Amino acid sequence: MEVMQILHMNKGVDETSYAQNSKLQSKIISITKPIIHDAVQEILRSNNIESMGIADLGCSSGPNTLLLISEIIDAIIRTKSCSLGLHLSATTELRVFLNDLFSNDFNNIFMSLPAFYNKLKQEKGPELGSLFISATPGSFYGRLFPARSLHFVHSSSSLHWLSQVPPGLDSKAAGEALNKGKIYISKTSPQCVLDSYALQFHNDFSLFLKSRSEEMFGGGRMVLSLMGRPSYDPTTPASCYQWELLAHALMTLVSEGLIAEEKVDSFNAPYYAPCEEELSLALKKEGSFLMDSLEAFEIDWDGGGGDQELHHTFDMVGSGQKVAKTVRAVVESMLESHFGKDIMDHLFQCYAELVSNHLSKSRTRYINLVLVIIKKD
Amino acid sequence: MEVMQILHMNKGVDETSYAQNSKLQSKIISITKPIIHDAVQEILRSNNIESMGIADLGCSSGPNTLLLISEIIDAIIRTKSCSLGLHLSATTELRVFLNDLFSNDFNNIFMSLPAFYNKLKQEKGPELGSLFISATPGSFYGRLFPARSLHFVHSSSSLHWLSQVPPGLDSKAAGEALNKGKIYISKTSPQCVLDSYALQFHNDFSLFLKSRSEEMFGGGRMVLSLMGRPSYDPTTPASCYQWELLAHALMTLVSEGLIAEEKVDSFNAPYYAPCEEELSLALKKEGSFLMDSLEAFEIDWDGGGGDQELHHTFDMVGSGQKVAKTVRAVVESMLESHFGKDIMDHLFQCYAELVSNHLSKSRTRYINLVLVIIKKD
Repeated sequence: MEVMQILHMNKGVDETSYAQNSKLQSKIISITKPIIHDAVQEILRSNNIESMGIADLGCSSGPNTLLLISEIIDAIIRTKSCSLGLHLSATTELRVFLNDLFSNDFNNIFMSLPAFYNKLKQEKGPELGSLFISATPGSFYGRLFPARSLHFVHSSSSLHWLSQVPPGLDSKAAGEALNKGKIYISKTSPQCVLDSYALQFHNDFSLFLKSRSEEMFGGGRMVLSLMGRPSYDPTTPASCYQWELLAHALMTLVSEGLIAEEKVDSFNAPYYAPCEEELSLALKKEGSFLMDSLEAFEIDWDGGGGDQELHHTFDMVGSGQKVAKTVRAVVESMLESHFGKDIMDHLFQCYAELVSNHLSKSRTRYINLVLVIIKKD
Repeated sequence: MEVMQILHMNKGVDETSYAQNSKLQSKIISITKPIIHDAVQEILRSNNIESMGIADLGCSSGPNTLLLISEIIDAIIRTKSCSLGLHLSATTELRVFLNDLFSNDFNNIFMSLPAFYNKLKQEKGPELGSLFISATPGSFYGRLFPARSLHFVHSSSSLHWLSQVPPGLDSKAAGEALNKGKIYISKTSPQCVLDSYALQFHNDFSLFLKSRSEEMFGGGRMVLSLMGRPSYDPTTPASCYQWELLAHALMTLVSEGLIAEEKVDSFNAPYYAPCEEELSLALKKEGSFLMDSLEAFEIDWDGGGGDQELHHTFDMVGSGQKVAKTVRAVVESMLESHFGKDIMDHLFQCYAELVSNHLSKSRTRYINLVLVIIKKD
């Protein structure tokens, strides 16, 4: 599977679109909001910036894309408004670069830009200054931007996507299916599967850091949020049970004669949920960035979570459907290219039932890791 | 009509798409190729550039978009390869910005970028250096890019589009239809119509120059090609007869009861084909640029033209259809928003017949003006 050509959130604005099914990712952005604010403030405190370069890597398409840009601009303006002693010119120019893979629905983002610019001008007035938004398509596992052009880099819900399915999982090369009946790390996966995934993540994340290190100014900061896991054990349900159930749904379709078992055996998700130690180690080895902070948050599969929601009554069936829609909006492009378009509705119906059933017994939650790192001078 | 929201070349790659019907514009790019080459050479000769900023304004979507980028990169590499005495580092970084209105089909361009990057790498090898392509959507009648970020700006077949229908043509405000039965300047148009168009072009072009003057480095160059006319007279067939025939086609549909006459009376194209003197005057008044050269080329309505094609046998019917398709790919978004989708096929069938009939009597050609201007220090 050519991940970089195929992977994209579901386009458009209909029922199965990412735009309509990205509450989970929106929740994650709202959790990171104070972290983004602090990072922006620190950048402006310690640098004299005339033209600030900002990139959102894996921006996707839908309400979250411009929401995030709004948050960043808010943080800059709030910092300006209490800027006593800060190196901040009233005329700071903001250069915002939206990035995602080539097949992302940038048209959809661009069509909403005129209204976005107007709203910002009305809300912020002259404080907004000059704002230039552009899009740079391509894989963030490699160079995307000119040398020393960025001060702040953000990436949310993207870095858990690998550049490719780990080559070590190739059933054809191995002569046998290595991860039989599964599509990601599972309790039954052999050690070589776990190792292949960990190695691919390490290589990808290191390349990500190296690429950004060339593009960022010293003192610049990155706020990176991605799916992770709470322990060394890569088979922990918090990091892989959503894939376990999706494999289960696929195997149900195998038992119904709708897809061939070999098709499931040969599919593996280009995804990895690392633990904190893996991030720290890669960071240290690459050497261009300092760790500022690393936090973990629990988030419900349906995008709920947080103390205020702990005691709400749980609608299992509704929640199962919501989770299925959220997962579908993200992974359908890959599944469709491997299994074909026709089975998608049935697959995600089956998946929704499995998720509902699971959530009635156990409230598995995602672990979201939020990392703030500083480019060394 | 909100030109900036509505105007876009026909999307996608089907029979009526701009991608399939842009031979005329491709011809114009090929005519300007040596002019682009010279301009790039002059920029590199007189500036020490580590990171070269290049913008294509009104890039549209289709084969022409990346063809143009190829031409520019070719010119840079050819200059490098005979760079004795030139201020040119082997490591020059190329920052390419593609611009068009918000509704342009950027997705289509982005999907073709991976193959484009691969082809360039194969053809150019390490000489290519670092190339960063991004898209900046928005109107070029206003700021698009950060201050002092561009060395070379190109715009082809775009600057004849106005930012709005000249306000002086508003039938409602005037209490009567000012340009009855016409959709652009015509022999029968009253003087106020001619004046309104000329004023709108002057204001738009001046704003274009002012915006670019803030974005460009001193010594930077622009190569601008646009539809024009050979004389002061704005009613000359070379600049407006394609609109005359389109108005005729619309009036045919009026006579068939398919559209209301008032609908035609209230539509005016946001287009203007200036003469050389108007360009020179606006340039002088704005004051930031020096004229390097201004040339005029004749081009057949169907994208033919040039000496080698003078004696070819002319297929009137085929040519009429080709011209109709070329015009449709460009103006359909505007006509559709005013007259509705349903009449488009019939309208352009009727238009093709009128064009064929006209070309059997007179070989009217477009005048394309190509302007090279230099940003003052």
